[in-house]
Amino acid sequence: MAALPEPVVRLTAALNKLPGIGPRSAERLAVHLVQEERGKVAALAEAITTARETISLCNACGALTERQPCSICADPRRTSAVVCVVEQPTDVLNVEKSNAFDGKYHVLGGRISPLNGIGPEDLRIHELEKRVKTEGITELILALGTDVEGEATCHYLADRFTSETVRVSRIAHGLPAGSGLEYADEMTLRHALEGRRHMS
Amino acid sequence: MAALPEPVVRLTAALNKLPGIGPRSAERLAVHLVQEERGKVAALAEAITTARETISLCNACGALTERQPCSICADPRRTSAVVCVVEQPTDVLNVEKSNAFDGKYHVLGGRISPLNGIGPEDLRIHELEKRVKTEGITELILALGTDVEGEATCHYLADRFTSETVRVSRIAHGLPAGSGLEYADEMTLRHALEGRRHMS
Repeated sequence: MAALPEPVVRLTAALNKLPGIGPRSAERLAVHLVQEERGKVAALAEAITTARETISLCNACGALTERQPCSICADPRRTSAVVCVVEQPTDVLNVEKSNAFDGKYHVLGGRISPLNGIGPEDLRIHELEKRVKTEGITELILALGTDVEGEATCHYLADRFTSETVRVSRIAHGLPAGSGLEYADEMTLRHALEGRRHMS
Repeated sequence: MAALPEPVVRLTAALNKLPGIGPRSAERLAVHLVQEERGKVAALAEAITTARETISLCNACGALTERQPCSICADPRRTSAVVCVVEQPTDVLNVEKSNAFDGKYHVLGGRISPLNGIGPEDLRIHELEKRVKTEGITELILALGTDVEGEATCHYLADRFTSETVRVSRIAHGLPAGSGLEYADEMTLRHALEGRRHMS
């Protein structure tokens, strides 16, 4: 019985290790790549290598960057007193898009997840502690997910970092902008009710 | 406003060109890759390059191969008189898995699709004509898809290749093995009825 040539099998295996790429998609991608124009394939391989070689995590905040420290950490117009704590490097971009925050960031690299064997020591919490001690931080804004693990991580961080000089807050959860009650699930509505603000 | 570093944006764009990878998955993959172990990333880039450099389409049948001709075309135990015509190089493997065919193959590279601007001249039909003239082929078994374009391509090939010496047949369409009527859609049942075989 014939099989795919060995280099295609090896490429399929390598692609299959990427997140969200199952065995079928990996094979389809591999078969596509070996038939694609050589120039385009070489460009993809080069883009992968270059990105990995030139990008690192900012030593200060943990965001993706080409330079140390990253452009946000290096920006003197941004206040160092307020730090927004997020899970992933890409979350920094999401908060930036809102144009509603002019402090610095701290990327945890995930959230506490005992089921997946991820404890506080696996996240960049020790680094955050160092920053809190040395950078005159007065407020940590937790912008983590709203699921159980996000909740647990928020409570852990609030316990660990709340002090006489540091307040820990959490971004509001409620109805998304432009949406009505009919699209909100129970949990969102519960958060929205709990987080109600008096208008007068 | 901050954005992803340029090499990550470039990698995202390159990944986004792959089939089945949308802008969101491309960004997620790019962000994953720049944080993955260097060795693994280098191995992926190398697997892509090697696969593209070492794999070509068999000059005879159009299947993926490291050598010319491919192992199936070069196998003297397989009859050259019967050729199974398929759309994609991977279809060869699917037919091989059935262990029900010991002839040769011919890969068209797609199917006739006027809506996508793919005509007979864009497929490897001219190459098939050459083989029919020189290789003593007596039967072409069409193993193409069952949708409208597959149907049209089958009819086109039957018109073009049926002759006094060459029969053109098509693989049967009907109920899949192990399945019952309750899971069959109308088109499958219609094919199954049309293709009924008398048992006595």
